[in-house]
Amino acid sequence: MDIENLFADIAAVKNGEEFLTLFENANAKIERIVSHAHPSPPGLWYDQEEDEWIAVLRGTATLEFAGGERVELQEGDYLTIPRHLKHRVAQTSAETIWLAVHLR
Amino acid sequence: MDIENLFADIAAVKNGEEFLTLFENANAKIERIVSHAHPSPPGLWYDQEEDEWIAVLRGTATLEFAGGERVELQEGDYLTIPRHLKHRVAQTSAETIWLAVHLR
Repeated sequence: MDIENLFADIAAVKNGEEFLTLFENANAKIERIVSHAHPSPPGLWYDQEEDEWIAVLRGTATLEFAGGERVELQEGDYLTIPRHLKHRVAQTSAETIWLAVHLR
Repeated sequence: MDIENLFADIAAVKNGEEFLTLFENANAKIERIVSHAHPSPPGLWYDQEEDEWIAVLRGTATLEFAGGERVELQEGDYLTIPRHLKHRVAQTSAETIWLAVHLR
């Protein structure tokens, strides 16, 4: 069996976001996202074709939703973002590790 | 938004396994599994219709596969168990928290 670790091989580059696909088939994609104090660019809103289940595995983050709602996420917090609900990352800690499952 | 936490509401009952569905649609199910030093019953092998992506979020565990391979899992370790690969939980720590994604 091929065993990997969610917390291994975090890039030394400490800016922006890193995306790593952990599993993918026709119906779903599981990815790790590492954010380094990285807000989405001002005015950029994610508007996705797929439901997204997302959890914070390390660090903290603030998500902002169209309409103005903001949620503060701590380690272990998870939520489902329904498709086409516009959202952005308002802020993250110095190293925030997310697990995201994109559900087609 | 409805925010929940992966590490909240662990049952006080310290035996067996607890299953909590976090998300489900036609193509996938995401669940949290909490094992309390819980091996699968001797001779019981899981033989699943779906690929299963699984990660250890807290604790440790040993998985055993048909054919005899055993893997020791630490916090953060993840793997994909292909459908119909028979496997069992040989052992877990006192409280092992898994995230499992069943992929149809």
